[in-house]
Amino acid sequence: MGNSVGIVRAERASFEEPLAFRSGAVLPRYDLVYETYGKLNSDRSNAILICHALSGHHHVAGVYADAPKSQGWWDNMVGPGKPIDTDRFFVIGMNNLGGCHGSTGPSSIDPETGRPYGSRFPVITVEDWVESQARLADHLGITRFAAVIGGSLGGMQALQWSLAYPDRVRHVLAIASAPRLTAQNIAFNDVARNAILTDPDFHGGDYYQHNVVPTRGLRLARMLGHITYLSDDAMADKFGRELKSGQYNYGYEVEFQIESYLRYQGDKFAGLFDANTYLLMTKALDYFDPANGGDLNSAFAKARADFLVISFTTDWRFSPQRSREIVRPLLHNGRRVSYAEIASAHGHDSFLMEHPHYFDVVRAYLDNVGREVSA
Amino acid sequence: MGNSVGIVRAERASFEEPLAFRSGAVLPRYDLVYETYGKLNSDRSNAILICHALSGHHHVAGVYADAPKSQGWWDNMVGPGKPIDTDRFFVIGMNNLGGCHGSTGPSSIDPETGRPYGSRFPVITVEDWVESQARLADHLGITRFAAVIGGSLGGMQALQWSLAYPDRVRHVLAIASAPRLTAQNIAFNDVARNAILTDPDFHGGDYYQHNVVPTRGLRLARMLGHITYLSDDAMADKFGRELKSGQYNYGYEVEFQIESYLRYQGDKFAGLFDANTYLLMTKALDYFDPANGGDLNSAFAKARADFLVISFTTDWRFSPQRSREIVRPLLHNGRRVSYAEIASAHGHDSFLMEHPHYFDVVRAYLDNVGREVSA
Repeated sequence: MGNSVGIVRAERASFEEPLAFRSGAVLPRYDLVYETYGKLNSDRSNAILICHALSGHHHVAGVYADAPKSQGWWDNMVGPGKPIDTDRFFVIGMNNLGGCHGSTGPSSIDPETGRPYGSRFPVITVEDWVESQARLADHLGITRFAAVIGGSLGGMQALQWSLAYPDRVRHVLAIASAPRLTAQNIAFNDVARNAILTDPDFHGGDYYQHNVVPTRGLRLARMLGHITYLSDDAMADKFGRELKSGQYNYGYEVEFQIESYLRYQGDKFAGLFDANTYLLMTKALDYFDPANGGDLNSAFAKARADFLVISFTTDWRFSPQRSREIVRPLLHNGRRVSYAEIASAHGHDSFLMEHPHYFDVVRAYLDNVGREVSA
Repeated sequence: MGNSVGIVRAERASFEEPLAFRSGAVLPRYDLVYETYGKLNSDRSNAILICHALSGHHHVAGVYADAPKSQGWWDNMVGPGKPIDTDRFFVIGMNNLGGCHGSTGPSSIDPETGRPYGSRFPVITVEDWVESQARLADHLGITRFAAVIGGSLGGMQALQWSLAYPDRVRHVLAIASAPRLTAQNIAFNDVARNAILTDPDFHGGDYYQHNVVPTRGLRLARMLGHITYLSDDAMADKFGRELKSGQYNYGYEVEFQIESYLRYQGDKFAGLFDANTYLLMTKALDYFDPANGGDLNSAFAKARADFLVISFTTDWRFSPQRSREIVRPLLHNGRRVSYAEIASAHGHDSFLMEHPHYFDVVRAYLDNVGREVSA
């Protein structure tokens, strides 16, 4: 399925012009960390931006020189000869503003106080991210992306590109995404947030100064998240009612393999990720609604791009129905839309996994995009 | 739809014979709190036992003299002329052992220590509950129930009656239930339990002595539970993306009505319910598996009762598929089974709500049961 992009290195761009957020808050300056794979062509027309989801970051493909197992989170998709082909495209991964992987976020030092931003870091929206991404594009000399691509929350950013900068993006690939959250989606986010917000170690978001981390809350949030990423069937197939020790122990330690899996995932994540970033990401999900509570047909009238929308049959976090809610207003507005509903057992997580039909769809679509741009 | 049973009073039965739990633990003595509605007939053949679900209790119908708004949790279903007709049947509601509404449970005084049981209260199973219910039946002089009825976890108890005491129950009504939990069901329970277990106020289950309550954890558990009780569609219809204040506030206070609803439900529950009981209830759900990991067809070979199995189309906690998993082994074993899949928008909670088709099915079934018993 193609090769790796090999050894990569993260880069950092500093932006000294203030960025006004949709909330009214202003960030006086910020850094964005990013990686690039492949070569920008002479007319700068072959750039693809990859937008990440809740727990993603800029390290999309390849490995770091000092860490041979540090494959990027979409290394199966991005590389020479892969569906997002770095022999053809100049691919950019970036860590979103508010993140915890190098871009300015709540754990960064606030120049005004000399301490981590913590609770002072403004609530950020998908719209704000796209603004910051546009500035990164300016910085890289990219006027127009061949494509902006994202899964889940990343798909929302890709959609927003087509609305905020209709002339700066030729193709949008929105994978396992939704035009806006449902009440149930918001409800899950709210429980996850409340786990963090009510953790006594949260300290109103300023836990950095207390040398603690709201591990309990972040762990619960991630455990809950994982349930919504997997399909009921995939969980049944993988874990079923299998016991850890082969018998009931009648206590509150791990009994079932599924508990072992969830707690492991929760612990791992809570040790790596910043709780404030988790909160920001879930809020960005909640707030995104290109129609502001109204009609999506009108909202998408601005779009000029062509679209590939992909959903997965067993995804119940953002079900195929949610992708069709993206497709309909695009068709209504005369956009060229391809829609693929991929039969996959792996629920929402499918968008991260290698799957021949899914990968063929992306490859075929981008082959055509590649023909539009010069070598 | 019939009248209320009127003013009711809880009663208490004390059992001084030890009860051995499936875990090996032994409870030396215990009380069970219960209510009865209607009259036991001369040959004691018209008794119906109502088994409650996770947060239920013995107060099924009627009101207390001093509290005119204290309707029982199934008052719409149980009463004179109602589907479970107290003009015809002698109906018993009871609070399960381990509960927090009067029956012996973790918050009761442990006679050995003079302090609340707390962490010393044994993990209890559906099988143990049925044993204690059988003793209550003995106490009331009921050799054989006309029917044992339950929704959700209550349905599991009703099923277990048909396996533990095949000759003591003529009819089993299992509503919105499942023969055993899936990995996803267990996963949700595990997140809820971990919210309580990791709450610093939990103190390993012995919070009573510390004069605190693990409110944060119990609140999260209930918020999460509520998401799984409602259907995606019902939530969308009831709350959608409606905002509390009509605008985004870009903070972590309540933004959406669904958040307001969930937090209210969480707070209310956390102020009333005992966290240790919540843990026990979820464990009983996890452990129940009449087939012990094996084949349900063999497991149900013991059953002698007739069955009514009811599911609701939008219930995704225990979907219609789970009810069909109950029906199949019963048919395999030649049981008489009626199965109704009710079109209802209200998800798992449907089993508690008045719905003409649902109520007609229960009424019609119990009319026939009523004809079998003398007046």
